[in-house]
Amino acid sequence: MIGVAVVGYGYWGPNLVRNFADTPGARLVAVCDLKKERLASVKGRYPSIRITDDFDELLRDPEVAAVAIATPVSTHFRLAMSALMAGKHVFVEKPIASSSEEAQRLVEEAVRRKLVLAVDHTFIHTGAVRKMRELVEDGLGEVYYYDSVRVNLGLFQHDVSVIWDLAVHDLSIMDYVLPVRPVAVSATGMSHVAGEPANIAYLNLFFENNLIAHVHVNWLAPVKVRRTLVGGSRKMIVYDDLEPSEKIKVYDKGITLNGDARQAGERTYQALVGYRTGDMWAPHLDVTEALGSEIREFIGCIERSEIPAADGRAGLRVVRILEAATQSLAQRGRVIELEGVRRVA
Amino acid sequence: MIGVAVVGYGYWGPNLVRNFADTPGARLVAVCDLKKERLASVKGRYPSIRITDDFDELLRDPEVAAVAIATPVSTHFRLAMSALMAGKHVFVEKPIASSSEEAQRLVEEAVRRKLVLAVDHTFIHTGAVRKMRELVEDGLGEVYYYDSVRVNLGLFQHDVSVIWDLAVHDLSIMDYVLPVRPVAVSATGMSHVAGEPANIAYLNLFFENNLIAHVHVNWLAPVKVRRTLVGGSRKMIVYDDLEPSEKIKVYDKGITLNGDARQAGERTYQALVGYRTGDMWAPHLDVTEALGSEIREFIGCIERSEIPAADGRAGLRVVRILEAATQSLAQRGRVIELEGVRRVA
Amino acid sequence: MIGVAVVGYGYWGPNLVRNFADTPGARLVAVCDLKKERLASVKGRYPSIRITDDFDELLRDPEVAAVAIATPVSTHFRLAMSALMAGKHVFVEKPIASSSEEAQRLVEEAVRRKLVLAVDHTFIHTGAVRKMRELVEDGLGEVYYYDSVRVNLGLFQHDVSVIWDLAVHDLSIMDYVLPVRPVAVSATGMSHVAGEPANIAYLNLFFENNLIAHVHVNWLAPVKVRRTLVGGSRKMIVYDDLEPSEKIKVYDKGITLNGDARQAGERTYQALVGYRTGDMWAPHLDVTEALGSEIREFIGCIERSEIPAADGRAGLRVVRILEAATQSLAQRGRVIELEGVRRVA
Amino acid sequence: MIGVAVVGYGYWGPNLVRNFADTPGARLVAVCDLKKERLASVKGRYPSIRITDDFDELLRDPEVAAVAIATPVSTHFRLAMSALMAGKHVFVEKPIASSSEEAQRLVEEAVRRKLVLAVDHTFIHTGAVRKMRELVEDGLGEVYYYDSVRVNLGLFQHDVSVIWDLAVHDLSIMDYVLPVRPVAVSATGMSHVAGEPANIAYLNLFFENNLIAHVHVNWLAPVKVRRTLVGGSRKMIVYDDLEPSEKIKVYDKGITLNGDARQAGERTYQALVGYRTGDMWAPHLDVTEALGSEIREFIGCIERSEIPAADGRAGLRVVRILEAATQSLAQRGRVIELEGVRRVA
Repeated sequence: MIGVAVVGYGYWGPNLVRNFADTPGARLVAVCDLKKERLASVKGRYPSIRITDDFDELLRDPEVAAVAIATPVSTHFRLAMSALMAGKHVFVEKPIASSSEEAQRLVEEAVRRKLVLAVDHTFIHTGAVRKMRELVEDGLGEVYYYDSVRVNLGLFQHDVSVIWDLAVHDLSIMDYVLPVRPVAVSATGMSHVAGEPANIAYLNLFFENNLIAHVHVNWLAPVKVRRTLVGGSRKMIVYDDLEPSEKIKVYDKGITLNGDARQAGERTYQALVGYRTGDMWAPHLDVTEALGSEIREFIGCIERSEIPAADGRAGLRVVRILEAATQSLAQRGRVIELEGVRRVA
Repeated sequence: MIGVAVVGYGYWGPNLVRNFADTPGARLVAVCDLKKERLASVKGRYPSIRITDDFDELLRDPEVAAVAIATPVSTHFRLAMSALMAGKHVFVEKPIASSSEEAQRLVEEAVRRKLVLAVDHTFIHTGAVRKMRELVEDGLGEVYYYDSVRVNLGLFQHDVSVIWDLAVHDLSIMDYVLPVRPVAVSATGMSHVAGEPANIAYLNLFFENNLIAHVHVNWLAPVKVRRTLVGGSRKMIVYDDLEPSEKIKVYDKGITLNGDARQAGERTYQALVGYRTGDMWAPHLDVTEALGSEIREFIGCIERSEIPAADGRAGLRVVRILEAATQSLAQRGRVIELEGVRRVA
Repeated sequence: MIGVAVVGYGYWGPNLVRNFADTPGARLVAVCDLKKERLASVKGRYPSIRITDDFDELLRDPEVAAVAIATPVSTHFRLAMSALMAGKHVFVEKPIASSSEEAQRLVEEAVRRKLVLAVDHTFIHTGAVRKMRELVEDGLGEVYYYDSVRVNLGLFQHDVSVIWDLAVHDLSIMDYVLPVRPVAVSATGMSHVAGEPANIAYLNLFFENNLIAHVHVNWLAPVKVRRTLVGGSRKMIVYDDLEPSEKIKVYDKGITLNGDARQAGERTYQALVGYRTGDMWAPHLDVTEALGSEIREFIGCIERSEIPAADGRAGLRVVRILEAATQSLAQRGRVIELEGVRRVA
Repeated sequence: MIGVAVVGYGYWGPNLVRNFADTPGARLVAVCDLKKERLASVKGRYPSIRITDDFDELLRDPEVAAVAIATPVSTHFRLAMSALMAGKHVFVEKPIASSSEEAQRLVEEAVRRKLVLAVDHTFIHTGAVRKMRELVEDGLGEVYYYDSVRVNLGLFQHDVSVIWDLAVHDLSIMDYVLPVRPVAVSATGMSHVAGEPANIAYLNLFFENNLIAHVHVNWLAPVKVRRTLVGGSRKMIVYDDLEPSEKIKVYDKGITLNGDARQAGERTYQALVGYRTGDMWAPHLDVTEALGSEIREFIGCIERSEIPAADGRAGLRVVRILEAATQSLAQRGRVIELEGVRRVA
C-alpha cells in the first residue's frame, strides 16, 4: 500500500481525497490545509484520516510515500520540491509550476531521485481525449490543423491571464494527442479590466511541418463553448466536450489530390482537387471518471517504477508554451521560438 | 429610369440580373458575357434584354447609365475603370479590386467624375447585420471584442487564399458594424496543398483602443460554422448565420467593476468584480432579400447623388486589410500597420 | 419519348415542369392551367412548350401519353379519372384523392387499363428515407416504434385539417419504410379557430404485432420540428430532416434481455435487463433531388410496364388512414379499424 | 425548530437529508432505513444524527414533528398514513400513493388532523416551471395546447409503467401551470418486454374548453429529450430542460384573426388569418435548488399552518390521472372521464 497525503483542500482537493480514498493500492494517510474549517470538513467525512496544517510534518512521516498537491500555482514549486527532496513521489495540479525554470528543476530533482513526478492533466485521462489520440495515431492520416475554442463567462483571475487558466487545458491535450511538438508560439489578447491580465487570448502554435494549431480562450463570452476541430488528410474530428454523450465525431470528409496542382492551369486544376464526403461516426467513449484513472495510473507507476502519461516533462513542455505565449502577447504576437527541453540524464 | 448593364453571367450574375429587373427606377438594358451559352440562357429567361459579348459596346451606349460587374476579381479593376472613364456609375462584386493600389485609383476616378461607385458587400444589407450595427451603436456599451468563425468544406481556389474568399465577408461586416477602424493586422495560416494558397487562416485586427478582433477562416473543416461573438461592456451578441430565424441573440451578461482593481488585494478584488447574468433576447429580423435592398440603394444613390453604405472607400478599406493580412501570413504573423486611406478631395 | 402534359402551374407545378423537362425519355408537350398569368410565365421560361387552359384538349392529343396533376386535392379524382379513361398514364400530387372511395376507383381504372398510376409521395425518394428503409430491412432488428413530430407555424388551410396537410407525409413515409401495415388508427386534435378544421393533431397507428406508431402534427408551433424516432430491437434511428447533412443517425443502443422476466423477482429481474450503449453513425446520404428520381422512375415504369414505389395502392392506403383519422378525431380518439384494401384483379 | 425524520436512504433520500440539514427552522433528528450499510453511510456523513431501522420508534418520538418519506411507491400509503395517525406532518415522494383511493384517504386524514401533507413534485419549485406559470397567468393569452416529450434510454421498471415513472413529472407540472383541470384522459402505449408494463406511452388530456394536452414518454429512446411546447393565443413557450441556462424561450408568434372565418370564401379567408412573428426572449431564471425551496416551503407551512403548493390534493389529482391513463392504455386509448375529487370538509 502506498501511503498518500493530500495538500490543499480547497476547490479541487476534495476530488483528490475522494479518489485516493477509493484507489486500490493507495492508503490515504493525511490531509493538510492551512484553514481550520476545511480540515474540520475532512474530519466530518473521513473520520479516520489524519488532518494537519503542518506540511513539514508530512514530509517527516515515513508512512507518507507520495504527496498530492492542490494548492495555488505560486506554491507548487516550493511544496513539490520539498516533497521530492524528502523522497516523496509527487502528484501536482496543473500547471506544474509558475515558470519553466521551476518546472525544469522539479523534473531534474525527480529524475535524480528516481521518484515519480506526475502533473494533473486531467483531460488526457478522459475517454474523449484518449479516443482522439487513437484516431490521430491511426485513422486521421497526416494531421493538418488543431483548432480549439474554450470560452465562457468565467471567473476573472488577477494573478494569471486566461492563457494560464484555460489554454493550459488545450496545451496539455495537444501535448498528449499530437505526434509532433511545437517549435514556436505566438499570442495576441487583451485585458478589458484596467491593470489586470488578458481575459481574451488567441494562441498560434507553429510546427516543423505544415501542421498549424490555434487556441481561442475567453473569460468574457456570452455562451460556453468547448470545441476542438482536428483536420487530417483522411478524416476530421469534432470534439465537443459539452455534448452529453457524443463528444467525439469523426467525419470521413476531406479533399483528394490527383497529380501536381502546381503545374495545372485553372481548368485542369479544378479536376485535380476532389471532395470526399462520407459517413460521420461517433464512437462510444469510456465514461470512467478521468481523475480516478489518473490516480490509479499514478499509484501503478510508483509500484512498478514507470513513467506516467503526464510526467514532469509534459508539465514542463506545457509551462514553456504558457510562458512563451505570455511573452508574445505582450508584444502583439511576436513569434517566440520554443527551445528544446534540456536533457536530463 | 436608370439604364443598367450587367457584366458577367456566371455564379452571381443571374442574381444581379433578377434583382435589377425587379428594381423600380432601374431598367435592365443589356447583359454581357464572353460565353455564348450563358448569353443564350439570358435570352431564354429575359427575351427583351439585349445580350452581347462586347463590353466596349456597352460603354458607348448612351442608354447604359450604370454597369454592374460580376466577373473574376482579377478583371474588376480594368472593367470598373473603363466604365467610370466612360461616365458610367459602377456596382462591383467584392472584393472591389485585386490590390489597394487599384482600389485607390477607382475611388479617385469616381470622385473626380462624381459617379457612384458601390461594392457588393451583400451581408451589410441583411437584417442580421443591420441589427448588429444598431446594437453596437446603442445597447452594447463599449465594444470589447469581435470574434468570427467562418469555416466549412469549401471550394479550394488557387488564385486567392481563403482570406480573400471568406474573411472578406467578415471584414466588410466589421467595416460596417464597428465604430472604429483597425490600425494594424496580423495573420497566420497554412496551405495543405503544395504550391497553393493558404486554406486555413487566422486574422488579428488591432485598434487604437482595447478592442480586439479576430477571424478564423477555413476551407477544410468537417462542419459548417458561421458564428460571430461580439462582446461589449453592457451586452454581448452571438450572430449565427446558420440559424434559420434567430440569427442574432443578445445576452444581458457581463462583468461589473467597482473601484480600482489594481489597488485591491486578492480578497478584496474578488468583491470588486461582479458577474451579471440576465435575459437573452433574439430580436425579430427584417427578412427582405439583402441584394434587392442593396440594388435599390444603388439606384437611389444615382438618382439623388448620394453615397452608398458600401462605397468605393469601404471596398478600399477591406482590400487594404486583405492585402496586409496576406503579407503578414507569409511572415508568420508579423504585425502590419494599416496606413490611413489617402484623402480624395 | 413519352409525351407529358403538366396540369396546374401553381405552387408545385413549376417543379414538375422543370424536372420533366430534364428527364431523359420524357418530352414535355404542354402545360395546362386556368390562369392566364401562370401560362404566360411558362411561356417566358419554356418558349417551345405549348400552353393551354383546356384540359380536354390534352386528353385528345395523341402526343400526350402521360399527365401530371398538381391541382387542388378536390380536383384530383376528376382530372385523374378523365386522364385514365382517355388512356393516359397519371402522376398525381398527394394525397391521391379526397376519399378512399375515389382513390379505390382510380386504382381500379388504372389496373383495368394497364396504365401507370403514380402518386407523388416525394419523401420516399429522398436519400434519408431510402436509407431508413434499408436500415429497417437490415440492421434495426424487430421494429418497436415509429414516432414522428412535424410541427411549425404553418399556413392554416380551411378545407382540410392539419392531418391531410402534414401527417400525409409521415403516413406515406411509414407506408414505404415499415414492413407491416397498420390495422387500426385513432386520432385526437383540436381547432383553435372557430369553425375551422383541426390545426393540431396526434395520430396513433396500431399494428398486429407490438409495433406502435405515433404522429404529432401542428400548424401553430413556435419552432419548426421534423423529427422521427424509430426504435428497433438492435438499433435505433433519429431522422431529423432539418439537419443540413446528417439527417439520419443510427444508434447502437437498446436493451438486452436474458431469460424470462416474468418469472424473475425484483432483484433477479434487474440482472436480466441489460443496457447497450455503443457507437452512433450517420451514413452519408444520396443528395440527388427526390422529385427528379421520382419522375425518372415514373417514365421508366411507363417504358417497362412496371409499378412505381408509390403507386395508386400506396396512395389509397394513405388516404384510407387520413380518412379514418379524421373520423376518429371527431370522436375523441375512438379506434377505427382499417379494412384491407379491396383486391383488384 | 421542527424536528424531522427522513425515512428511506436509497436514491433520493440523501438529497432530502442534505436539504433538511441545511434548512433553517428544521432540525434533522433521525434517518430510518432497513439496510444497515445505508445507515452506516448516514453515520459517516452526519455523526450527530440518530439512525434506526425501526419506523415505529420514530412515530413514538415526540421530538419528531414531521416525517419525510422516500421509499418505494408501494409503501407510501402505509408509512404516510401511520405518520399522520401519529400526528406527524408528512412530506412524501411522488407519486403520493399507488392509487387514488389511497391518496384520497391520506388527504382526508391530513385534513381531519390539521396536518401538513406535501408531495414532492420537485419540478414545480424550479425557476423554469415557476416562470412558465407566471407566463401562463400573464402573457400567453388563452392557452391552446400543452405538449411534452420526455424520452431517453431509461431504467426499465417492472412494477410500474413508464407513465408512473416519467409522465408523473409532466402531470405535476401541468397541475401547477395550467389554469384549468383535465376532465378526461386517454392513453396508448406498448410494452416491448414480454410480461412487463408499457415502456412507451402517449397521453391525451381533454379539458372543458379547447385546450388540449399531450405527453409522450419512452424508456427506449436513443436520445434524451425533455421538451415542452405551450401554445397560447398571444405567445408560445418552448421549455427545454436540457438547456444549460436558457430553459425557457418565449416566442412572440402566432396567428391573428380578423372577422369570422366561417363566412369567408377561400380567397377572403386567406386575408382573414394573419401570421405574427416577433422577438424571442429567454428570461433569466432563478437557479436556487428546487428541493431546497420546496423543503423550506414545507417547514414554513408547518410553522404558519399553511398549505403547500403541492399538497395532498395535488398529489391525488396526479394519481387520479395516472390511474385513468393506465386503465385507458389497456383499452387502446378509450377515453376515461376524470370525476371531480371528492370534497373534504
